[in-house]
Amino acid sequence: MSNTFGETLKVTIFGESHGTAIGAVIDGLPPGISIDWDKVRREMARRAPGSSNLATPRKEKDSFEILSGYFNDHTTGTPLAMEIRNGNQHSKDYDILKDHMRPGHADYTGYVKYGGFNDYRGGGHFSGRITAPLTFAGALARQVLEKEGIFIGAHALAIHGIQDRPFHPLGEEKALFERLDAMKLPVMDEKAGKAMEEAILAAQKEGDSVGGVVECMALGLPMGLGDPFFDSLESEMAHMMFSVPAVKAISFGEGFGFASRYGSEANDSLHYEGGTPKALTNHNGGVLGGISSGSPLLFTLAVKPTASIGKRQRTIDISKKEDTDLSIGGRHDPCIIPRAIPVIENAAALVILDLLLTDRRNSHVG
Amino acid sequence: MSNTFGETLKVTIFGESHGTAIGAVIDGLPPGISIDWDKVRREMARRAPGSSNLATPRKEKDSFEILSGYFNDHTTGTPLAMEIRNGNQHSKDYDILKDHMRPGHADYTGYVKYGGFNDYRGGGHFSGRITAPLTFAGALARQVLEKEGIFIGAHALAIHGIQDRPFHPLGEEKALFERLDAMKLPVMDEKAGKAMEEAILAAQKEGDSVGGVVECMALGLPMGLGDPFFDSLESEMAHMMFSVPAVKAISFGEGFGFASRYGSEANDSLHYEGGTPKALTNHNGGVLGGISSGSPLLFTLAVKPTASIGKRQRTIDISKKEDTDLSIGGRHDPCIIPRAIPVIENAAALVILDLLLTDRRNSHVG
Amino acid sequence: MSNTFGETLKVTIFGESHGTAIGAVIDGLPPGISIDWDKVRREMARRAPGSSNLATPRKEKDSFEILSGYFNDHTTGTPLAMEIRNGNQHSKDYDILKDHMRPGHADYTGYVKYGGFNDYRGGGHFSGRITAPLTFAGALARQVLEKEGIFIGAHALAIHGIQDRPFHPLGEEKALFERLDAMKLPVMDEKAGKAMEEAILAAQKEGDSVGGVVECMALGLPMGLGDPFFDSLESEMAHMMFSVPAVKAISFGEGFGFASRYGSEANDSLHYEGGTPKALTNHNGGVLGGISSGSPLLFTLAVKPTASIGKRQRTIDISKKEDTDLSIGGRHDPCIIPRAIPVIENAAALVILDLLLTDRRNSHVG
Amino acid sequence: MSNTFGETLKVTIFGESHGTAIGAVIDGLPPGISIDWDKVRREMARRAPGSSNLATPRKEKDSFEILSGYFNDHTTGTPLAMEIRNGNQHSKDYDILKDHMRPGHADYTGYVKYGGFNDYRGGGHFSGRITAPLTFAGALARQVLEKEGIFIGAHALAIHGIQDRPFHPLGEEKALFERLDAMKLPVMDEKAGKAMEEAILAAQKEGDSVGGVVECMALGLPMGLGDPFFDSLESEMAHMMFSVPAVKAISFGEGFGFASRYGSEANDSLHYEGGTPKALTNHNGGVLGGISSGSPLLFTLAVKPTASIGKRQRTIDISKKEDTDLSIGGRHDPCIIPRAIPVIENAAALVILDLLLTDRRNSHVG
Repeated sequence: MSNTFGETLKVTIFGESHGTAIGAVIDGLPPGISIDWDKVRREMARRAPGSSNLATPRKEKDSFEILSGYFNDHTTGTPLAMEIRNGNQHSKDYDILKDHMRPGHADYTGYVKYGGFNDYRGGGHFSGRITAPLTFAGALARQVLEKEGIFIGAHALAIHGIQDRPFHPLGEEKALFERLDAMKLPVMDEKAGKAMEEAILAAQKEGDSVGGVVECMALGLPMGLGDPFFDSLESEMAHMMFSVPAVKAISFGEGFGFASRYGSEANDSLHYEGGTPKALTNHNGGVLGGISSGSPLLFTLAVKPTASIGKRQRTIDISKKEDTDLSIGGRHDPCIIPRAIPVIENAAALVILDLLLTDRRNSHVG
Repeated sequence: MSNTFGETLKVTIFGESHGTAIGAVIDGLPPGISIDWDKVRREMARRAPGSSNLATPRKEKDSFEILSGYFNDHTTGTPLAMEIRNGNQHSKDYDILKDHMRPGHADYTGYVKYGGFNDYRGGGHFSGRITAPLTFAGALARQVLEKEGIFIGAHALAIHGIQDRPFHPLGEEKALFERLDAMKLPVMDEKAGKAMEEAILAAQKEGDSVGGVVECMALGLPMGLGDPFFDSLESEMAHMMFSVPAVKAISFGEGFGFASRYGSEANDSLHYEGGTPKALTNHNGGVLGGISSGSPLLFTLAVKPTASIGKRQRTIDISKKEDTDLSIGGRHDPCIIPRAIPVIENAAALVILDLLLTDRRNSHVG
Repeated sequence: MSNTFGETLKVTIFGESHGTAIGAVIDGLPPGISIDWDKVRREMARRAPGSSNLATPRKEKDSFEILSGYFNDHTTGTPLAMEIRNGNQHSKDYDILKDHMRPGHADYTGYVKYGGFNDYRGGGHFSGRITAPLTFAGALARQVLEKEGIFIGAHALAIHGIQDRPFHPLGEEKALFERLDAMKLPVMDEKAGKAMEEAILAAQKEGDSVGGVVECMALGLPMGLGDPFFDSLESEMAHMMFSVPAVKAISFGEGFGFASRYGSEANDSLHYEGGTPKALTNHNGGVLGGISSGSPLLFTLAVKPTASIGKRQRTIDISKKEDTDLSIGGRHDPCIIPRAIPVIENAAALVILDLLLTDRRNSHVG
Repeated sequence: MSNTFGETLKVTIFGESHGTAIGAVIDGLPPGISIDWDKVRREMARRAPGSSNLATPRKEKDSFEILSGYFNDHTTGTPLAMEIRNGNQHSKDYDILKDHMRPGHADYTGYVKYGGFNDYRGGGHFSGRITAPLTFAGALARQVLEKEGIFIGAHALAIHGIQDRPFHPLGEEKALFERLDAMKLPVMDEKAGKAMEEAILAAQKEGDSVGGVVECMALGLPMGLGDPFFDSLESEMAHMMFSVPAVKAISFGEGFGFASRYGSEANDSLHYEGGTPKALTNHNGGVLGGISSGSPLLFTLAVKPTASIGKRQRTIDISKKEDTDLSIGGRHDPCIIPRAIPVIENAAALVILDLLLTDRRNSHVG
């Protein structure tokens, strides 16, 4: 099992949805950083359920407590540990899920991997709830990056086929990111946003769910981040993003669009702009040879429809060893994207800060 | 820099395109494995240039030498090191590339990251040539997997917009994989294959290149591979695949197709088949919750058009600090996919064997 | 900073002496292990202060809480996190230590390393208190090892020059280990034990402290543990032991005694005993070529006198930037060995279980 | 198996004594370093056999070849790989060792660990010969450190009970280190040196061998190196040193001497010297709380007598499964210390540079 991510900035995640607490230990955060906790809480609130009519009204107590690594209003340089106590969930609601494997979930794969000892309640260690400590850790990283002039934004590029306009590959205003942050469903095209909301609520009425695409951009990245051969910027970012439940694809720059391009259309030409090299285009999404190119980092993620649906599905009962039907009770997210967006933004910040700190060691010739 | 991949099976890659040698050190291979070296050479030959009219006629001596870790026809359990001596390349051809940054390459990002000390000849450490040792390491892993009944196949799902038929999500015949292995451009639909070849040769005539999509499948994976929270099967596979030059996107199962599905269409229902649970569909590409589900592992990769093209491109001359035009001489691959396919298959084998050995370690209750 | 130890069984430690909580996250523990929590509490109690007249009477609340990874009386296979809340320490007592650097402590080295942002109260992250979560993690590992027939014991081989008799290199009775476990100062020679106690209490009267030597033995280790070239059994054990505050030397088998031996006296001859190879002697302390030899693992540790003493010492005041005298108030351990012994035993268990789980993957030929 | 060492500067070692080649891959070396290869060769020559009458006259071709990572007289920042081809050893001489397990060697532990697949010739991967690539890697690190004003020296503190005078804990002249480097048996007390030589030659006459103690000092270390809780300077140095064959104990500062000290004798008092804090003594060998204190780093190592001796020893024949006598032919080192000293100095450099680069990474507040 590996629940630790990072080369220089190491984050360890623990917890199960219905256990005593979930949390994170962040090791490698430089000393002397003063954290704006309200800002961290805002990121946590964006992810938390019950925040809008597009998400599950289920309330979760996501109030975190710092256990170590923060003293006199600054990071100490030693591990910063945090925990979020799990509220009194109605674990009873989940008893049926002990034997009835939810399609599209890790219920059965987890059952097999752990020989039946996994905590099945609410998905246990595979619950989306485990993204709360990840969001927390990322929110710290994000504050460090912002002091370095690195800003991250994301929006719903598509939900159930309805498209928002994409980010401009050569960059957007930082102010746009702030506006998106404030939206319950971050989009640039209001009309598309309305249609997306309707599609989400319609699916919910049917006891169903919808998926979509999230587009994420990072502005202000210095050149040189990423450690090929294996730890390229794309490798590290993809590694992290596939830890976010429901993410099933990642694409940098034109991604699958490259499949119908000519090389002459895919390469980004360089030229001098006031003495400094600049790219005229950004087909490659800010990464060349696995290393940040100085153009905005741009990637998109496919997010599958929430697996938990009320609609009747066929599945198995592993205690009776027979087929059965399952309609998942409780109140679930008809679309996870509104809550996935802050997770993605902050998880991206974690990857970028790790690569930034790792890269700096190379700039020291003994 | 991290040039080592793997948790249990650790592979370290070294070398530059025009240096003395490239190679790999493979640490963690169990002792007592007898390798079929001809089979390894076949995989190396599939990747090597000069193998067909679709690839660069440039010949590379890819004959490898084992330096350690293999004794009396078996692995010893200690590091298996190999090297491939670089032939006498015409480095002179590359002198112009010292100052003229090739668009779409790591020339300029590498120059900045390494403060101008990188070996620029032929792309140095970022050359596609570095995939030779990766293919070697993967070919060893693949032999181990085949003894376990795990088989991997890949084909060109698309080249410059022309589509081959996709693999059946619930699996294909192992025999099909063998047929594909033998093709210079592995496809299932011959007509599509012909059209793809024509598109490649047409681009070549124009001094241009084309991209496409590779689809890869692994049959026979046991359930339980993948180590969430962070080291999910998708995370590990994506991490590796983005180390392969020109890969710009990865998608598992329906990938971006999920964006327009309902949950009821995206979940894979389970049922009992002769007493054992089976999935009725495989929308999720054999991975649920980051763990192998027992269905075939299925993923697609976007491969961008070869960045090296003869067509005149605008770029910069970093010594004169001025804009310039560049037409890349030498003979390059008009499409890298025929040679990328064996790299992808074998690199996938490396990831799967690492997860397999890692998982077994956990299955031991003290 | 690295606060994570282990290749297969990864333990992450966090916390400061006077912070909110200290704790550990244990990742890689196989699923399905049922823990005897009373046994764990007993190990914690052996380490806790206030347990005898030989230790500081200062009481610490070492009652731990499990946050995750344990469900229905078994480990889940996902991270097992625990925390120990820090009681209401009189941090005020430590205010003087903000500026007055205690000789023999990490006060000043930590101040410099963390740019003055370290939590200085009670030694912060460098406090001996941080060995509580380490003891906890080790106590879990120890239970797993005992089920495998591996038993660990330790005693005070020397305190302030007074010698106990050493373990017999070829092994002791498991029952002896249990007797030692129950002693406040584990020794085999009662007379020596009495003299040691007197030496400790005499030093305490003078506001001083004493050091000594701990000898540790592990019985029942299978052959083959340890992963040279770098991760030899000795390397891993030493790495861990030097994490235990006050340990300043480690020696395997005859250790420094080898310096005056002939090879013919230092080698351990093998012979067949009922068909199985056995060593006639154990000069090498159960390790050959960095790998467990099947003989008992035997090592000794030098433990320096407690650095915190009442006696007046010369040191610096970093705020006034002037020399000063310091007499450390509060009630400190006149000798740390009685409390260090359970830490050492359990930390050793952690190393052995990690190597055991790591080794097993090698025995799987694909 | 882990054959990679280091957090920021990662060194991977491969090879067997009688295989095709041995070597190292060094990943994480900053770009732009110009290496003095003659200096590296000198370090290699100090370690190589056949250099003096105190070492085996057996000649080994230790001429190394750089395979990658060095271009235009500077490191590139990508992996620097080197190899040493193994000369045409008389492997036949070793055939008897296939079945006759040499006491004091890894022959039998390696046989068991690798299920009999290990390369037994000349000790295979456990041969002292594998320290050649380690010495090479360390020699590079040492050059980087010297540019930073960090110098390392070592000498034979004792051989078979005969003592040299110890280094002064507060430091020695850099010039002394150079004098020691030039000696075939580095000692400060010539008389002791003579007596040591006689002891070595006398043992050799008897077909026996002798052990001793090596003392190593590093001058100029900045404060703050070492990454507790687990990766303390002592932990990292010990981890590395126990990778050096024949090392059986390590001690920092007064080491086992602490066992009979009072705290008031063991603590190092600080005072201001020209405005900067200095320690008045260095009982702790330059490490406090696992972090470099600014005083010279000082440690001693117990080196056991060479296990290969001509004297008749009792052991087992694993093919006949019976006891036998063994007198090891060939020409072996009667004392390994003269050749171990350069290995230890350079291996220490590797650890220090890794900690230095790692620490700098942390000193960057975002």
